[in-house]
Amino acid sequence: MKELEERIAREGRVFAGDVLKVDGFLNHQMDPALFRAMAREWRRLFPEEVTKILTVEASGIGLACVAGEEFGCPVLFAKKSRTRNIAGSVYTAPVESYTHGGVYTILCAKEYLLPTDKVLLLDDFLANGNALLGLLDLCAQAGAAVVGAGVAVEKAYQPGGERVRARGVRVEALARIAAMSPDEGVRFC
Amino acid sequence: MKELEERIAREGRVFAGDVLKVDGFLNHQMDPALFRAMAREWRRLFPEEVTKILTVEASGIGLACVAGEEFGCPVLFAKKSRTRNIAGSVYTAPVESYTHGGVYTILCAKEYLLPTDKVLLLDDFLANGNALLGLLDLCAQAGAAVVGAGVAVEKAYQPGGERVRARGVRVEALARIAAMSPDEGVRFC
Repeated sequence: MKELEERIAREGRVFAGDVLKVDGFLNHQMDPALFRAMAREWRRLFPEEVTKILTVEASGIGLACVAGEEFGCPVLFAKKSRTRNIAGSVYTAPVESYTHGGVYTILCAKEYLLPTDKVLLLDDFLANGNALLGLLDLCAQAGAAVVGAGVAVEKAYQPGGERVRARGVRVEALARIAAMSPDEGVRFC
Repeated sequence: MKELEERIAREGRVFAGDVLKVDGFLNHQMDPALFRAMAREWRRLFPEEVTKILTVEASGIGLACVAGEEFGCPVLFAKKSRTRNIAGSVYTAPVESYTHGGVYTILCAKEYLLPTDKVLLLDDFLANGNALLGLLDLCAQAGAAVVGAGVAVEKAYQPGGERVRARGVRVEALARIAAMSPDEGVRFC
């Protein structure tokens, strides 16, 4: 998606350690007009019936809410918890954290993720794929169908995209990064 | 706001310990159409110029993003951290947690909260007021003006509303709860 790529090229900053800072418009300060354009693009890419959008806190929530209007469906965000043992009314999945280290648990209430649901997963970043795999795990436990996964930015040189696509899930990234470095900036696929 | 009150009356569940569960449409599963109506109501209540919406992760983010479109401004969410000492490029404020116990730190990058900003604070719940007071603290550090605070649900029998209003901040709650109990449900002001 041209608009997102241009924004990343203009305002994104690349730091050592494979860090792309886009916190001026995507995941700390957020640009609702850009989110609307992104949501419309996901709607175009996923014309299928979608009954629920599933994301994970925190940075995916804004994107998911704006997309929820385009898809005309409720939005569910999985909560993060450091607690591993949680009572029986929720589905849980472990997620390894690249950013913060260690493993955390994501969870959602069973009553909001149903076997009849047709779920679109949404998130801001796809790198190693752990968050999306955790969301897929929640959907599998619920017996919900997964329509696909939309992400804002995919680091295409990392294994996450392959790992998620290997599960038979269609992934649509609005900006795919082929390579990046502090010196040369971002190159898109 | 009639629509929100009716939704709470119909779908909200009151549990012992002063807990109102509205996670079917407000803070776990979210209804984007309801969020749009709420955002329009806040826009009507705050016709002043607003250059930034400030909320705190996680449940405020969806509301804030939809409202950002109505106000035509960027949205900034303060991040929660258990780390007390954080480097100098961020404003930080301590917030006492009623739900989880203990104190956590909220923070936002200095570059996104400016002395020229006219800030509308938004959050899903107002009870003891600690989260809003933390956001006010961030704005004070930045020298930003605060236009007011919009909340979805105010527990009017708790001290938060008074504490925030005592700072000279106009608070607009879309549903104000006068009393609630598991047996008798919710009574609005």
